[in-house]
Amino acid sequence: MSSIDLNCDLGESFGIYKMHQDDILLDYVSSVNIACGFHAGDSQVMHDTVNKARKKGVAIGAHPSLPDLQGFGRRELKIEPHEAYQLTLYQIGALYGFTKAAGINLHHVKPHGALYNMAAKDRAVAQAIVQAIYDFDPSLFLYALAGSEMIYAAEQTGIKAVSEVFADRTYQSDGSLTPRSNENAVIKSEEQAIEQVLLMVREQKVLSVQQQDVPLKVETICIHGDNQSAIQLTQVIHCKLMQEEITISAPQHPL
Amino acid sequence: MSSIDLNCDLGESFGIYKMHQDDILLDYVSSVNIACGFHAGDSQVMHDTVNKARKKGVAIGAHPSLPDLQGFGRRELKIEPHEAYQLTLYQIGALYGFTKAAGINLHHVKPHGALYNMAAKDRAVAQAIVQAIYDFDPSLFLYALAGSEMIYAAEQTGIKAVSEVFADRTYQSDGSLTPRSNENAVIKSEEQAIEQVLLMVREQKVLSVQQQDVPLKVETICIHGDNQSAIQLTQVIHCKLMQEEITISAPQHPL
Amino acid sequence: MSSIDLNCDLGESFGIYKMHQDDILLDYVSSVNIACGFHAGDSQVMHDTVNKARKKGVAIGAHPSLPDLQGFGRRELKIEPHEAYQLTLYQIGALYGFTKAAGINLHHVKPHGALYNMAAKDRAVAQAIVQAIYDFDPSLFLYALAGSEMIYAAEQTGIKAVSEVFADRTYQSDGSLTPRSNENAVIKSEEQAIEQVLLMVREQKVLSVQQQDVPLKVETICIHGDNQSAIQLTQVIHCKLMQEEITISAPQHPL
Amino acid sequence: MSSIDLNCDLGESFGIYKMHQDDILLDYVSSVNIACGFHAGDSQVMHDTVNKARKKGVAIGAHPSLPDLQGFGRRELKIEPHEAYQLTLYQIGALYGFTKAAGINLHHVKPHGALYNMAAKDRAVAQAIVQAIYDFDPSLFLYALAGSEMIYAAEQTGIKAVSEVFADRTYQSDGSLTPRSNENAVIKSEEQAIEQVLLMVREQKVLSVQQQDVPLKVETICIHGDNQSAIQLTQVIHCKLMQEEITISAPQHPL
Repeated sequence: MSSIDLNCDLGESFGIYKMHQDDILLDYVSSVNIACGFHAGDSQVMHDTVNKARKKGVAIGAHPSLPDLQGFGRRELKIEPHEAYQLTLYQIGALYGFTKAAGINLHHVKPHGALYNMAAKDRAVAQAIVQAIYDFDPSLFLYALAGSEMIYAAEQTGIKAVSEVFADRTYQSDGSLTPRSNENAVIKSEEQAIEQVLLMVREQKVLSVQQQDVPLKVETICIHGDNQSAIQLTQVIHCKLMQEEITISAPQHPL
Repeated sequence: MSSIDLNCDLGESFGIYKMHQDDILLDYVSSVNIACGFHAGDSQVMHDTVNKARKKGVAIGAHPSLPDLQGFGRRELKIEPHEAYQLTLYQIGALYGFTKAAGINLHHVKPHGALYNMAAKDRAVAQAIVQAIYDFDPSLFLYALAGSEMIYAAEQTGIKAVSEVFADRTYQSDGSLTPRSNENAVIKSEEQAIEQVLLMVREQKVLSVQQQDVPLKVETICIHGDNQSAIQLTQVIHCKLMQEEITISAPQHPL
Repeated sequence: MSSIDLNCDLGESFGIYKMHQDDILLDYVSSVNIACGFHAGDSQVMHDTVNKARKKGVAIGAHPSLPDLQGFGRRELKIEPHEAYQLTLYQIGALYGFTKAAGINLHHVKPHGALYNMAAKDRAVAQAIVQAIYDFDPSLFLYALAGSEMIYAAEQTGIKAVSEVFADRTYQSDGSLTPRSNENAVIKSEEQAIEQVLLMVREQKVLSVQQQDVPLKVETICIHGDNQSAIQLTQVIHCKLMQEEITISAPQHPL
Repeated sequence: MSSIDLNCDLGESFGIYKMHQDDILLDYVSSVNIACGFHAGDSQVMHDTVNKARKKGVAIGAHPSLPDLQGFGRRELKIEPHEAYQLTLYQIGALYGFTKAAGINLHHVKPHGALYNMAAKDRAVAQAIVQAIYDFDPSLFLYALAGSEMIYAAEQTGIKAVSEVFADRTYQSDGSLTPRSNENAVIKSEEQAIEQVLLMVREQKVLSVQQQDVPLKVETICIHGDNQSAIQLTQVIHCKLMQEEITISAPQHPL
């Protein structure tokens, strides 16, 4: 594969509370997931972020979440599938307000945090989220964990799934992410992360912590920007991919 | 004029808190303003309400508000014009999510409560709200107080304004509503309200509390459903208009 | 036992959204659990409700909840024990503001909805809530499900637990409530509910759905006021207890 | 005067959003105003902040605000006096939950942002806030703008007012702050700010922008910590006051 998408979360400021890394990250990714006000972001932040992303020409996605500003959308809330459908539709629409006004296309949807994790495992919630995307616009891409229930639901429903992998997380031999409670869940070595990225992109596989080759659909790599070392890793990955003549670009529908 | 629009607010339940009059009101109006989650409504209520309104074939509008659930959007919050622009765009988009999924058109936007009143008098806020509507979709109608800054801003910007009047409120000789602090602000007599409606619709004027004929642009009549007598007034107005062979229908763009 | 406490939730209005049964219920209970703004209630509702309860002379408790206004605190949110501690302390304090200003004592704390259910089963969450109560005021009573982790935690920590039972819910032979998903979870017959109440109060036991006598600590009976038949049941229970010369009164510390 | 109080706002983080200057500021002030969850702060932040402040031995005050997390409590919301009373009582109580659990006294109340400014000018709102403080605990101090309606209301009601001045704001000859819209509202020179502080503390007066000596009651100086230069100014003021042998300490009730 000579092309890969790099995506990151964006627009996660709120009111006077600023996340300052947005401008840096925008130079290294091909697509962004913009918070919709439920875990972060507000109408002013969304407006500003959509305009920033438009200027950089990156693909813009909605990043819907459970309603939990205090917990940044990271705490699991037990919701019914119809609630997942409704809150996804609300947030896609809200972000669409800003992309429409800016004269650009909405490209994808990627659920955030606990909603992402719940939907990866729970078929009914996954199906509800996918249905919301489909009902809003069946040409939207879904970004979701490679091999998850979300990918399956998207395929069943008829929307294009984009399989997401992580540069700095280790994998189990069944293709799942090593739980964060495990000591070796996160890759701390920059070299090891880059090695994993190149293997993923070139060969669509990953080396599990059990030292097994695991096939993995690799269509977008999620980049974190929480701290200085994460931003540095992003820059190094970006640079390495360019050196290897791997194009960094967002998925597009065939003409 | 042989035709008039009757509009009412709808979808103002929240969570377990129900406003039970929605189903009744839907039988008597031609257009509805659906709450978008800032003063009332949530994603489930919006979903249900859009589907109810779709079944009845009424025109659907977004009803954006200041962010004030506790105060039901009735308390003035000093916001900058850019904040008015952003929160309007957010809420139009959020409601659009549900109309798009339901396969129907969004027809109009009517600001709610304190935002409606602020925008009626403050040119910069009015202009910001109108710009948000224009940027989202210039074919959307704006519902606003007859003779207000909102109507002026819409005309300047190039969107179609629909002038709103009230069946149960008295008017001053300058065309403004009698402030609610005045004793005679609200018309309590059903006969007097109907008489005012017929005068408004037929002759585009109103009799002020000072007993003067005041010309008034009359394109939609706002109907309240807060209490039993308001609902009864709605039914009687509806009935009287039909008897007088005045068509009740939402404004449409010329073909 | 010649005495029993009847408790009900109170002050669950929010903004313009009214729960109208508060005034009726207050005539039939000896203690009330007042919402603290996280699932229902706001500062105005809390102020009004505390004053109403003061006039009736009932015992006043705080009714802390998970932060979920839309879901009325009924949706499980995965929180850490320290979060349970902190949100309990915040809400007890907030209600205390109103009881202190009204010159009356805060009598007890009863967690609401999903927090009540989580704490009944999860020892760490139960312990955190009990610790918050203890740290605020060790003389406060804890109202909690009979036989639950909450009761155990209270006993370990040194605060007085009041074991709660339900008039209109059936029990399993292990003393747990029949899950609401079961068909026979709720007792619909008024006679059967009263019979259960009298057995509980007089003999500290309940007849399980498996027709077994199950010993149960019975110190307070929870009364619902959601609908007309629930209110009627409350009235009938109150009346029956009086006929049987069972005193209805809130628990007090020994002098 | 050989003693003065330095106060600053504290605990204005929210969820994952951190204000990192709290630890620095705590070394330079004698009293702190802790956010109560309406404009900033949440139950975890409040818990942590109260414990930090306790360790440093500074006087702890509640910092109630209008309900406006997105606007950081800086946007004016038109509320009735009874609403000001109720939201103040709620927030004092909520913070009291944490000071009570920590075994320390609540020392004062200082309204935040737009509520502070509204209450400085609006007698009814000022009176409502003061009444809430009085009803909760008449021994609490009120921190408020020197010469404002708040000070007057406190004196009328019988609670001890502490007159607040600003190191880095200029004054008009009538004793009011120069509005922020004016170019010379903020003192940018460190030397000038220190000079103003020393004049205020020693002679209870200020030199207005019109170059007039204006008498001013000076009991506490408000310190900002929003940016690096504000923190530096705080440090320099602290240092200068110590050099001049002026004690930095919070007001206490006479024994």
